[in-house]
Amino acid sequence: MAKLVGAALLGQSGGPTSVINASAAGVFLEALKHEEITEIYGAAHGIKGILDENFYDIRKEDVEELELLKYTPSSAIGSVRYKLKDVKKDPTDYNRLLEIFKKYNIRYFFYNGGNDSMDTCLKISKFMKKSGWECRVVGVPKTIDNDLFGIDHSPGYGSAAKYVATSIMELYLDGTVYNTQQFVIVEVMGRNAGWLTAAASLAKVGGVQPDLIYLPEVDFDLDKFYSQVGDLLKTGKSVFVVVSEGIKTKEGKYIPELEADIKRDAFGHANLGGTASILANHVGEKFGVKTRAIEFSLLQRSAAHIASQTDIDEAFKVGSIAVKKAVGGTTDKFVGIRRADGDKYKAKFPLLPLKIVANAERKVPAEWILPDGKGLTDDFINYALPLIQGETKLKKVNGLPRFAKLKKVLAAKK
Amino acid sequence: MAKLVGAALLGQSGGPTSVINASAAGVFLEALKHEEITEIYGAAHGIKGILDENFYDIRKEDVEELELLKYTPSSAIGSVRYKLKDVKKDPTDYNRLLEIFKKYNIRYFFYNGGNDSMDTCLKISKFMKKSGWECRVVGVPKTIDNDLFGIDHSPGYGSAAKYVATSIMELYLDGTVYNTQQFVIVEVMGRNAGWLTAAASLAKVGGVQPDLIYLPEVDFDLDKFYSQVGDLLKTGKSVFVVVSEGIKTKEGKYIPELEADIKRDAFGHANLGGTASILANHVGEKFGVKTRAIEFSLLQRSAAHIASQTDIDEAFKVGSIAVKKAVGGTTDKFVGIRRADGDKYKAKFPLLPLKIVANAERKVPAEWILPDGKGLTDDFINYALPLIQGETKLKKVNGLPRFAKLKKVLAAKK
Repeated sequence: MAKLVGAALLGQSGGPTSVINASAAGVFLEALKHEEITEIYGAAHGIKGILDENFYDIRKEDVEELELLKYTPSSAIGSVRYKLKDVKKDPTDYNRLLEIFKKYNIRYFFYNGGNDSMDTCLKISKFMKKSGWECRVVGVPKTIDNDLFGIDHSPGYGSAAKYVATSIMELYLDGTVYNTQQFVIVEVMGRNAGWLTAAASLAKVGGVQPDLIYLPEVDFDLDKFYSQVGDLLKTGKSVFVVVSEGIKTKEGKYIPELEADIKRDAFGHANLGGTASILANHVGEKFGVKTRAIEFSLLQRSAAHIASQTDIDEAFKVGSIAVKKAVGGTTDKFVGIRRADGDKYKAKFPLLPLKIVANAERKVPAEWILPDGKGLTDDFINYALPLIQGETKLKKVNGLPRFAKLKKVLAAKK
Repeated sequence: MAKLVGAALLGQSGGPTSVINASAAGVFLEALKHEEITEIYGAAHGIKGILDENFYDIRKEDVEELELLKYTPSSAIGSVRYKLKDVKKDPTDYNRLLEIFKKYNIRYFFYNGGNDSMDTCLKISKFMKKSGWECRVVGVPKTIDNDLFGIDHSPGYGSAAKYVATSIMELYLDGTVYNTQQFVIVEVMGRNAGWLTAAASLAKVGGVQPDLIYLPEVDFDLDKFYSQVGDLLKTGKSVFVVVSEGIKTKEGKYIPELEADIKRDAFGHANLGGTASILANHVGEKFGVKTRAIEFSLLQRSAAHIASQTDIDEAFKVGSIAVKKAVGGTTDKFVGIRRADGDKYKAKFPLLPLKIVANAERKVPAEWILPDGKGLTDDFINYALPLIQGETKLKKVNGLPRFAKLKKVLAAKK
């Protein structure tokens, strides 16, 4: 494979995670090692930053700050929700991307995101190839939802799962503390896949078991739910329930849809806040019990202070491997994570075709889900527990996290 | 002072904190050292457990588990919201308490709680004295609200403040990540005192500054708020706001009161959930911006995984000093925390009369609050920053917190 000399460009896309910047650190710090890579750019707000030619010049950053990116939540160079149109319907964006790739001599393109972003990688890669612009495109996966197809798990999931399991333990102790009955319901992110909600069952390893856990993989039966809650309330104890934001009735209706019309975001997914509140209100009315609805909201994807060091290390590796392999000639792939054989957990990082993940969604296997909201099987526990191991090495200053402070120097427009 | 031989009893009351059990550990472990103390009881659910004669026999617990209480959130022996009536109006409860104190030979009574609990201590102490039953009553303060009068700060505040400051840093990074504008509003606990909301300003020490912070100490002007938010939105950037659940208009109306009638809890305080959601909805409607309302809810008082070790150590000391002093003859007091002179932060623990704290509320000094929601002065930062120092020594097993597991053996009823 001939040496390909030119600039490397990273974009971050979609909802952030605690470790998406660890992958960025992997990309940037690895890129600094390769003489083939002339410039290192970070696109301000993903594809949008490319189209607008807003590139941060990463060579202007201090290496120590790039190292701190490993422990810094959110998307340090800015994220975006922007879906490229079908090239046949509207090639405008693609032509503009090609123009910019040529102008800045971008020969390495890394895009860090979920299903939609892997799809973006695929589309861009195809277009560049067709246009005769040699550019190696490697996807860097991330998502707290853990719904990427073809891999064992995605970077971001372990940290969010550790947050969920820990917080459920703490909330359970708090929510069941009074002698008077309370109904506590916690809402966890996850549109169609219940991986993160399932992480609530890890609390059981710590000695705490939520009464009911509902994943979006199973049709949600409102009548049955009320009857189960009613039975639990009859015991006199407080009741603690965990639900995914994405639970749906068998007619395919989300809980907030049952209540009101809802807004839709740029990818056409429903904005599902409020499931726990709605259910809590109904339970309060039906059973006259005090209720408390808690939404993890952005906390579950940004709580870097309780990130899994396993997750951080893997996210970093996924980024650095992407660069290493691209320099070596790889394109049209993403860096996956699979589990090595053997009793002890160990990750391996195969290069996988973008098309196996693009726009597909991996759900929690039906056989891992116990019936009637009774939680998850030991197979799930064995799967997820290794992913939350290791306490973050996040540095603290003044009792507060020391997150990376990037200079964000914009590269001169060409 | 003559030796007083008999049983010691601890009750936990009101909303839990991350470190109320650290104080319990202080009481229990210290009590184990004194031969004057025959039995050590934990009242199941505070006053309610005493009235029902539900006592946990703490001597049956493993000392290692009692040590782990230091790092275990919530109220390990159960909490309660129960306000003793005025003895002149209804002495029933008091007579019952006297009967039980005599039956179990309770000579040392410790009650761990906030303003209401110090009031309970005072009432019980007075009644026992009047009835000729010698019992030393020492209050053990706690509250995340930090509104106890006559002391520098209360156990529980430092940990909750550390949670708030850290989470605000993380949420700010996440909430301002997109190229499209967002309005993020975070709601922090604190009915009448804004100490915990003020802790959001500590994020500034970590390099993150919320745009607006509103405390309940200052009349909340809705029109002004919308105009400030409107001005900030004109800059094109996302807007990040922190509000106390207790903000009120100058007419004394809470935000949810402006929207609808609200339930009231046993102490007559309003149940104030929803302030952030309501404001977010209005901002969304007025300015057509995407909004996100986040409520810290129970998380801010139960997140032991990010407790302040300074707070844990002080909470433990407050509990152990209560016992030491009671054995030495002290009664009718609570263990306060004040700041020792000198540049370096150091706490001292004076015994203070219960009546200075009972039912009084300490607010954030007006001169520490910058006008127009612009945050807090450096005086506040200097005050609060030492309280969030030190990372918790909480042990982890399997990547999850190892909280105390008490046997909770009920003492035989007499």
